[in-house]
Amino acid sequence: METSWVESANDGLTDFPLQNLPLGIFSTADLDRRIGVAIGDYVLDLRGCFEQGLLGSPSAALQKAYTSHTLNILMSAGRKAAKPLRARMKEMLRAEAASDLCDEVGKLLHSSSEVTMHLPADIGDYTDFYASLYHATNVGKLFRPDNPLLPNYKYVPIGYHGRASSIVLSGAQVKRPRGQTKAPDAEHPVFGASRLLDYELEAGFFISEGNQLGTGIPIDKAEDHIFGLCLVNDWSARDIQAWEYQPLGPFLAKNFATTISPWVVTMEALEPFRVPAFERSADDPQTLPYLDSANNSQQGGIDLTLEVWLSSQRMREAKLDPVRLSKGNARDLYWTPAQMLTHHASNGCNLRPGDLLASGTVSGPSKESVGCLLEMTRRGAEPIELPGGEQRRFLEDGDEIILRGYCQREGYPRIGFGECRGTIIPAS
Amino acid sequence: METSWVESANDGLTDFPLQNLPLGIFSTADLDRRIGVAIGDYVLDLRGCFEQGLLGSPSAALQKAYTSHTLNILMSAGRKAAKPLRARMKEMLRAEAASDLCDEVGKLLHSSSEVTMHLPADIGDYTDFYASLYHATNVGKLFRPDNPLLPNYKYVPIGYHGRASSIVLSGAQVKRPRGQTKAPDAEHPVFGASRLLDYELEAGFFISEGNQLGTGIPIDKAEDHIFGLCLVNDWSARDIQAWEYQPLGPFLAKNFATTISPWVVTMEALEPFRVPAFERSADDPQTLPYLDSANNSQQGGIDLTLEVWLSSQRMREAKLDPVRLSKGNARDLYWTPAQMLTHHASNGCNLRPGDLLASGTVSGPSKESVGCLLEMTRRGAEPIELPGGEQRRFLEDGDEIILRGYCQREGYPRIGFGECRGTIIPAS
Repeated sequence: METSWVESANDGLTDFPLQNLPLGIFSTADLDRRIGVAIGDYVLDLRGCFEQGLLGSPSAALQKAYTSHTLNILMSAGRKAAKPLRARMKEMLRAEAASDLCDEVGKLLHSSSEVTMHLPADIGDYTDFYASLYHATNVGKLFRPDNPLLPNYKYVPIGYHGRASSIVLSGAQVKRPRGQTKAPDAEHPVFGASRLLDYELEAGFFISEGNQLGTGIPIDKAEDHIFGLCLVNDWSARDIQAWEYQPLGPFLAKNFATTISPWVVTMEALEPFRVPAFERSADDPQTLPYLDSANNSQQGGIDLTLEVWLSSQRMREAKLDPVRLSKGNARDLYWTPAQMLTHHASNGCNLRPGDLLASGTVSGPSKESVGCLLEMTRRGAEPIELPGGEQRRFLEDGDEIILRGYCQREGYPRIGFGECRGTIIPAS
Repeated sequence: METSWVESANDGLTDFPLQNLPLGIFSTADLDRRIGVAIGDYVLDLRGCFEQGLLGSPSAALQKAYTSHTLNILMSAGRKAAKPLRARMKEMLRAEAASDLCDEVGKLLHSSSEVTMHLPADIGDYTDFYASLYHATNVGKLFRPDNPLLPNYKYVPIGYHGRASSIVLSGAQVKRPRGQTKAPDAEHPVFGASRLLDYELEAGFFISEGNQLGTGIPIDKAEDHIFGLCLVNDWSARDIQAWEYQPLGPFLAKNFATTISPWVVTMEALEPFRVPAFERSADDPQTLPYLDSANNSQQGGIDLTLEVWLSSQRMREAKLDPVRLSKGNARDLYWTPAQMLTHHASNGCNLRPGDLLASGTVSGPSKESVGCLLEMTRRGAEPIELPGGEQRRFLEDGDEIILRGYCQREGYPRIGFGECRGTIIPAS
């Protein structure tokens, strides 16, 4: 396997080996917001690379992309622009690079501990799907024990529009929302702090090139419009959700905050981890033709492990390490990213560069692989035990949730996503 | 009543008398996008006014607002900035203005027929409410005859996130969407052009100053955050909606296009038309305290007449005038704009300048005042007759829908909203 002259990229533990090269937006005490590339324990200043002439003579559009404060312009240039950029990054960072090139590039590296990360893109619209059959079934069982899955589920990649303004970066504190809730036996609802606060473990993907309003995107072209992936925590107030969601879906139960990880792992980096789409059983209906293709069935999935870790305030005070609550995999999603995207644009809805689509809670078949507390504790009926003796039905103030994601296989470096962290602070 | 030296502003028929002065974004063959003010049959170039020194010596922030390509910066400056600007506009345009001022201002007027209008703001997030009790009841009856209104309705201003990217300006053609639909007796859904295409008559309002993530907006401060209103047509594909909307709400049934009118009628212009909020009956539950205030009850409503007109292709060919399908009033909404806004931010969700909130379909108690065909034809069961002999259950290709809105009362000039037009073109 190719290695890098940046030694921390080769330790077998890093999320960011030479084969990953995810993109993000960083600043330092001296540099304003700009595109960076993660490599081991460092961030490479892409704008600096361009300004030092290390990226050749890019087109005017790419010059604008390389010097921008967000990834939107680079995203709009599409994967055809991302691929040669990736190749050039590899040339500059691989162990075999000439020593004068290493010297030049080395001056443009910043220690990860000294940079501040920012949202990778101006997110115009944010859409959240519901692509895990296990999640939909588990949640459905809590509400409709005899009929957990609605009739449309295996035909329609169900999704809804989320809130773009309240998407925050990993590390931001999340204030417990207030809202209307109504106990089943109460006559009236009350307004106050949510008591059933939850996380949702999700994978998100950013749109690269968009589509014109009124034109769809065929399933076999869908991935041309996906720039890369990040981790998403779709914080959810279950008590607010239960009372408000009929008939128009979740609203204030979700839009108080959504946390994403800072690094966008490109589709190119994920190529070695593509797997068949979720296998349909003989009882499952035929996928409608606009969502179906041999290519999608054969390699539309992504073998991406996703984990949830929790650290309570008391655990931190007692110097206890975070505890892993669950471990799932994006390959367990019933719908692939391509299917979600093609469905989204199938009515002519225009997607724009930098738009974020998320998978919905990623849950697997076992209790150890469910992506939210609602499922794990069966709406609080079966609390979980934390190291140090605490119990959790839902999140308490001071709880920190850490999402991690990585692709791993024998003989290939780990392609990691970094972390997506958020700590709950008390309601106003 | 004060009149203007722009004579077409005084004819009693115009939407844009001196008392209105709505703001929008226009361009001409020679001028790029900029803020304009509608007066009679003309548009006044606000940027030009600033550049000619007619707006005094504004702050740096206001200079940026006046020379911007959208209204967002002016909106962010809040109503405290909009009020003196309005006063100055009146000074410049009133009949009593000095003749040299009229000469200067006159050079900055453009005939409405020679300008191109654009979206008034970069709309970050678009939220659609469901604030008409009549609409919710009528639609509920079609689905649940015995229990039309859900238990949360009179407590929660129900809303959901719509799509910002597909908001288009009045005049844009609207392509009939394709999507999954399933006939009640069919075994499987099919993918194809929607056959139950509908309009929804709504009032929209733009956010002025925003709020920080994590902080709410008290009900008596809510209107400080509302810049002004426009007309909204929330096009809806009823067959797609029926199949997709459980459990997360409408998605592709709505996000293929939303049409808005170009002029933003400010809250200042609407002041003379403020009315009490929708009167609660003795059986209605007490409004929760965070949504309740004496001020809101006494004058939280707006006496705004809203009309839907239709012109079919055949009607146009036969030189028949558009026909009015319905006439409703925003005062019939169960929830006021202030209540919708305060509810939206009550969980800490951050609203940003230029965000658009819409009321949901405005329907009144009579069949003549319902704001969509779903209600008017009872889901197609009772088609309506058009001039020339056609029938309509839902919209046909070539149908043009024109929304109009105005505030009117004895002894005061009509405050109009202009038009919100869209014509259906065939599916791909």
